[in-house]
Amino acid sequence: MPGFPIFASRRVRQTPFTERVESAPLSGYTVYNHMLLPATFSSLEDDYAHLKKYVQIWDVAAERQVEIKGPDAHKLATMMSARDLRKAVPGKCYYAPLTDANGGMLNDPIALCLAADRFWFSIADSDVLYWALGLAEGLGLNVEISEPDVSPLAIQGPLADQLMTAVFGAEVSQLKFFNFGYFDWRGHSLLIARSGWSKQGGFEIYLHDTAFGLQLWDDIWQAGEPFSVRAGCPNLIERIEGGLLSFGNDMTRSDTPLECGLDKYCSLDSDVEFIGKSALLKQRDSGVTRSLAGLKIDDEPLRPVANTTPCRSGDTPCGYITSAVFSPDFDSNLAIAMLSHEISRDGQTIEAYLDGQWRQAVCTTLPF
Amino acid sequence: MPGFPIFASRRVRQTPFTERVESAPLSGYTVYNHMLLPATFSSLEDDYAHLKKYVQIWDVAAERQVEIKGPDAHKLATMMSARDLRKAVPGKCYYAPLTDANGGMLNDPIALCLAADRFWFSIADSDVLYWALGLAEGLGLNVEISEPDVSPLAIQGPLADQLMTAVFGAEVSQLKFFNFGYFDWRGHSLLIARSGWSKQGGFEIYLHDTAFGLQLWDDIWQAGEPFSVRAGCPNLIERIEGGLLSFGNDMTRSDTPLECGLDKYCSLDSDVEFIGKSALLKQRDSGVTRSLAGLKIDDEPLRPVANTTPCRSGDTPCGYITSAVFSPDFDSNLAIAMLSHEISRDGQTIEAYLDGQWRQAVCTTLPF
Repeated sequence: MPGFPIFASRRVRQTPFTERVESAPLSGYTVYNHMLLPATFSSLEDDYAHLKKYVQIWDVAAERQVEIKGPDAHKLATMMSARDLRKAVPGKCYYAPLTDANGGMLNDPIALCLAADRFWFSIADSDVLYWALGLAEGLGLNVEISEPDVSPLAIQGPLADQLMTAVFGAEVSQLKFFNFGYFDWRGHSLLIARSGWSKQGGFEIYLHDTAFGLQLWDDIWQAGEPFSVRAGCPNLIERIEGGLLSFGNDMTRSDTPLECGLDKYCSLDSDVEFIGKSALLKQRDSGVTRSLAGLKIDDEPLRPVANTTPCRSGDTPCGYITSAVFSPDFDSNLAIAMLSHEISRDGQTIEAYLDGQWRQAVCTTLPF
Repeated sequence: MPGFPIFASRRVRQTPFTERVESAPLSGYTVYNHMLLPATFSSLEDDYAHLKKYVQIWDVAAERQVEIKGPDAHKLATMMSARDLRKAVPGKCYYAPLTDANGGMLNDPIALCLAADRFWFSIADSDVLYWALGLAEGLGLNVEISEPDVSPLAIQGPLADQLMTAVFGAEVSQLKFFNFGYFDWRGHSLLIARSGWSKQGGFEIYLHDTAFGLQLWDDIWQAGEPFSVRAGCPNLIERIEGGLLSFGNDMTRSDTPLECGLDKYCSLDSDVEFIGKSALLKQRDSGVTRSLAGLKIDDEPLRPVANTTPCRSGDTPCGYITSAVFSPDFDSNLAIAMLSHEISRDGQTIEAYLDGQWRQAVCTTLPF
């Protein structure tokens, strides 16, 4: 996937792991939360095949933390999250869509309750910090809002447990999915969660202090040699196969979590009050008119899309593709698309405009 | 300036002009407001030499607009801006630092008053929309906040007036600096301002409707041939020479506008109330301890910095460089640095750590 080089500047921030990533060697970057995020190493396909078989170290420092701390932290976190966080407890991670007053998605972070008065939102690509700051200022809340020096490093792949055990001891493999704990490493206590943006299993290590980034990378790298460890990153093929939605790609502020199939993360039947709840209740009552769905496009391998591309059912426009890639394992192109709700049913055949022509596409539910 | 390729995706948005930019041919991108922003074409040095002599078309669509509209728009815009916008009038542009409650910079947009109840902030690289949304939600303001389909195209360079006159007629060259008006083009009324992120003079055309981007580019390109027009972009050398500060590079939320030398854009002596005013008043009373300054580093040409680099005065750390580049016209490396206030005086000699060694650096006021 050739692309134009990215120009270095402080504004597009390096991470604690950049030096190792770039000599891995990296072959492509994206930018995420004003920070460099690796996109490919060997190639999309090679990275994907390796990820599904072995274990990889991912520099996902760009998943920045928005920390909300203080007497009103619980109140603010709760009103920001479509998922009821009132009973959030330390040690658990919560996938939490954030919505504006119209129910439009602002981000889809993982919320971590560190203490009764201290939360992290581990965010996708948008300045949640500004949203939180604005709310706190407008409501006169007693909170401190900051982006701490915390940089997640993910260990992903079927051999992740073995590698993590080698570095942090057997206890780390006792962690349940979306739980976190604290583990010793060279005198530091590291927050580690069983989580990560793949369906291959693994962990996210929340490194607290840029200065120790290279040491952490090197320790894991060394321990990983018996497991054929490689540098990797969130992989477009693997995440589309797994139906992992990407904020900014598959979901924007023009979309609601109900349209994105995230109903189960929206606490519409609880008595919690969050911003966007009334809009979402109204939409649930009237029914969504659009939905995210999968598309299978049996054709020659297509290039990943750089923009939305239109879909039609007969002569009628019926939505657009948000992400697409060729999957070697499915031997087919796979896409995620926002489609008219009545179209988005399993097995329906439509057409999508890709690489200069209309191609037949079969709707399917996510994940593939 | 080699760099790793940027990976295409919808999340890193293309602009209405991307097709022309990439065949210009482009040689480097950056990402700005979740959008592609050209960083180099021929080379930093060639682009710079051409910009200072002729005229360039710049795809600065990434300078997104945050539109605030409605009965409380004036109130919200005023409270967000350190510059008093109460008497802002249609037809004028206002450089306006935005600060949080601690006086930390959130962005430094150009504010355009389109009507008494309708403002645009033409923003630098951060989600001002989220800050505005949060304030409006928290304060219960009656406003609509959106990012309209508006993409600035800048025409910059000493021949900009001639080129603009050829396309839009003689009237456009009557525009005064930081004024805007509406000009006809193929049946559209385009907002055009005399502004732009260089010191070479020029205009910004606020294209309203992505669909007409290529036509606008082509019309200007064709009219520009007699003036040796080229595709260009904000140029690192030219902007550092001119002391144009870059949010995210030279200024962050850790810095106040007073530390950045933007005192004259902060209405601290008026009775306007804006967020951050009391913190800034307090800082003005006690005096700043750090200031942005220029540094001249007479040495072999250095690479642009990808991160802050430390400065010292004798053995004492005294700040860090935020941007740096070699200037052919000054035949010297030029840098912008955040330095201890007592150090930042004209003519003071310090040392800066660049490309692996400590180098002598002479302080100077900005612009160079």
